[in-house]
Amino acid sequence: MDTLTHLSHTLREAMSDIVPESHPEHPFNLIPELCRKFYDLGWATGTGGGISIKMGENYYIAPSGVQKERIKPNEIFVLNASQDVVEEPRTEKQLKISECTPLFFNAYRMRGAGACLHTHSANCVLISLLCDREFRISHIEMIKGIINNETKKALGFRDTLVIPIIENTDFERDLTASMAECMERYPESCAVLVRRHGMYVWSDTWQKAKGAVECIDYLMGLAIRMRTLGLEWEPKDVK
Amino acid sequence: MDTLTHLSHTLREAMSDIVPESHPEHPFNLIPELCRKFYDLGWATGTGGGISIKMGENYYIAPSGVQKERIKPNEIFVLNASQDVVEEPRTEKQLKISECTPLFFNAYRMRGAGACLHTHSANCVLISLLCDREFRISHIEMIKGIINNETKKALGFRDTLVIPIIENTDFERDLTASMAECMERYPESCAVLVRRHGMYVWSDTWQKAKGAVECIDYLMGLAIRMRTLGLEWEPKDVK
Amino acid sequence: MDTLTHLSHTLREAMSDIVPESHPEHPFNLIPELCRKFYDLGWATGTGGGISIKMGENYYIAPSGVQKERIKPNEIFVLNASQDVVEEPRTEKQLKISECTPLFFNAYRMRGAGACLHTHSANCVLISLLCDREFRISHIEMIKGIINNETKKALGFRDTLVIPIIENTDFERDLTASMAECMERYPESCAVLVRRHGMYVWSDTWQKAKGAVECIDYLMGLAIRMRTLGLEWEPKDVK
Amino acid sequence: MDTLTHLSHTLREAMSDIVPESHPEHPFNLIPELCRKFYDLGWATGTGGGISIKMGENYYIAPSGVQKERIKPNEIFVLNASQDVVEEPRTEKQLKISECTPLFFNAYRMRGAGACLHTHSANCVLISLLCDREFRISHIEMIKGIINNETKKALGFRDTLVIPIIENTDFERDLTASMAECMERYPESCAVLVRRHGMYVWSDTWQKAKGAVECIDYLMGLAIRMRTLGLEWEPKDVK
Repeated sequence: MDTLTHLSHTLREAMSDIVPESHPEHPFNLIPELCRKFYDLGWATGTGGGISIKMGENYYIAPSGVQKERIKPNEIFVLNASQDVVEEPRTEKQLKISECTPLFFNAYRMRGAGACLHTHSANCVLISLLCDREFRISHIEMIKGIINNETKKALGFRDTLVIPIIENTDFERDLTASMAECMERYPESCAVLVRRHGMYVWSDTWQKAKGAVECIDYLMGLAIRMRTLGLEWEPKDVK
Repeated sequence: MDTLTHLSHTLREAMSDIVPESHPEHPFNLIPELCRKFYDLGWATGTGGGISIKMGENYYIAPSGVQKERIKPNEIFVLNASQDVVEEPRTEKQLKISECTPLFFNAYRMRGAGACLHTHSANCVLISLLCDREFRISHIEMIKGIINNETKKALGFRDTLVIPIIENTDFERDLTASMAECMERYPESCAVLVRRHGMYVWSDTWQKAKGAVECIDYLMGLAIRMRTLGLEWEPKDVK
Repeated sequence: MDTLTHLSHTLREAMSDIVPESHPEHPFNLIPELCRKFYDLGWATGTGGGISIKMGENYYIAPSGVQKERIKPNEIFVLNASQDVVEEPRTEKQLKISECTPLFFNAYRMRGAGACLHTHSANCVLISLLCDREFRISHIEMIKGIINNETKKALGFRDTLVIPIIENTDFERDLTASMAECMERYPESCAVLVRRHGMYVWSDTWQKAKGAVECIDYLMGLAIRMRTLGLEWEPKDVK
Repeated sequence: MDTLTHLSHTLREAMSDIVPESHPEHPFNLIPELCRKFYDLGWATGTGGGISIKMGENYYIAPSGVQKERIKPNEIFVLNASQDVVEEPRTEKQLKISECTPLFFNAYRMRGAGACLHTHSANCVLISLLCDREFRISHIEMIKGIINNETKKALGFRDTLVIPIIENTDFERDLTASMAECMERYPESCAVLVRRHGMYVWSDTWQKAKGAVECIDYLMGLAIRMRTLGLEWEPKDVK
């Protein structure tokens, strides 16, 4: 590590002992950082997409209808388990909480998730149009990055990853019931695709949720290229 | 926020109280920043594309024929509502104002826009070649990021986004009349595609104009991939 | 070089004389940097992929199951030639060594490699599905960036690059024997593709290994686009 | 501009009055910067590609066979008009001058160029395989970014851009004569495609050469997508 970077790290760590919110992985800092990453990947452009992380008893949620790559640490809402705002963003801007909030809480309530992510990746939309009720793929190494929500174990190379698909609604909040109903029918799944819209992905920690969304988006992008090349998603004869 | 970043922010804010132009979202800083972003997205390479933002009674416009990702704050022209230059760029370089100027002013005059953006995205060119007089798409979530210029309301998921297409001319300025005429025929539209060339997009604020161009480019890129996969842009039977 | 950068460089160099590990190209720094690069290229998302570099008698290996783009210098394992850990990561985090370790050592033992890289690039997966036992391509300039492991000379423009493909297994470590066996059958090759999984690439130095993986991934991406356009990978009639 | 950035700029400018080589647009700094950009675009991976810039009577050329994105200011060769090295790189590394040197000098000698760029973009390779002796495209706005080498005027929207293609050779230097001969046959062209290899592009200044390579690569990438969608490159009936 070079000297200036070292100095900066030392100062940051000293400060994060005193003010925990200054830690780079505190949700106040992590949500803006991950939103920038999602924006750069095309998953959260045009104010689309969203990120929510749980820490302790608090649920941190990004504002609605803002440029996701420009969110600042003082623009995050803090909620409790009853979905009440316990801490408003510390900014003069008039912000509304993300419309995805009740959908994020499906993952918190029903699965005890530690983070729930929402992307508008074009891969999701295309896959939702190429599939009927489920996206299914097997025998690709990256499937091993997905955790079965019931067994809590990672999927194996020969397992079929199944992501259920629900129909889109006119308003985001109206997806709450059908997403919950879908999660009940698919207890092993860590994600729900919304047709013509995007995807919700959750896991025990933000690290695992981020890993899952990366694996699933990789697999969907791969599947689309496979389709163009005439390759099967669920092959019968793999050694 | 780490200590060094915090120091930098504090200094910047103190300075931006005294010198408003030093604020990161002043058009002098924002236009270079957005030009870099557009360049990275392939929307403004080879000196193509352009950005214009209104603040107060001033219209800020990038220079013509320069590398868009290298524009500096002191290279921006300031115009009044009559399209007179009221402030020359504060540089020794010989700069010409963007040839898009009269087209940007179509949006300012006819729609009271707060910003007008011009991209050369390859998606625009391809869509303009796949369509006749309009690009039409419906039933994709990202359509909700577009605002109807007449009702001032966001489009709904089931609405059809319609972007009109005009023919290209030998010189950019010669598009002025046909763009204006097109805007009159399409009062709800926030964008005009120029065949074999690119797109103009505007909105009340630079934030909304940037959101709109991101949504439209996403939808056009998606539509091209849909075409390759044999998927319909305006489906009849969506639940 | 600007003054601040110069100051930073001078300090860094002064420090790296005293503390060699602070040198930017020490494996403690280089592995995190290259992991970030691989992540950005989509070669190491979802905790996939891995990097290992030899320096002196030490083998530096990244941890397993972590976000590759967030690895820090103090999270690297140091091993000796017998694959014993001689230096644990200097962090409180509970880290496991990469499961690729015995595969990396195939390259160290059998080829005297100085670095071995593992990617999950989607190009690798697609090529492994389009080919039977080998990926073969000739008459593309970038082939000249690949070194024949037997002759130690770069391939020529008219040579055929041959990358052998092995079948994937349920656990990464179970690839060790089949990868070694494949390397024996293909003594000229600097890489092995793992079907439906990814690729291992090695060379005498990390610079050459990085160059090789860039050339091979470029050639695979090109080959997939060639297939879509109906172009031959091993043409007969090149002037 | 924020205060720290301002400070850095002021120091840099003060220093560049005293030491011209510290100016960010001196070829010692510009070549590394542009090499990084080309690397990020996939035009100079695996040590491929190259950049050369003329300033005053000096010709600045990058070293051969190195990672293009890691070139440092002290690794650049300086040549005179007779292609003699007048200043060796100021580094202990053993560097060889780029093998593209005699090809760059074709542009300097025959066209009085101010810069000559070489890319290995996959778009170049694909276009060289889809075309016989020339790549031809017309009626796309980005064509206006190309300058006719004979008239010194920019091409018009309705002009046909013609880039001639030469056959690749086993060694880069053996392209010298056929590139020169091709340039004589195509006096209007600012670029030569090398089949199955890449492209050379030049212009009066590095800014114009960079603009030209961006426009041509954009047009080639677009043309490949047009081919996939069944669209004509030289349409007969454009309004």
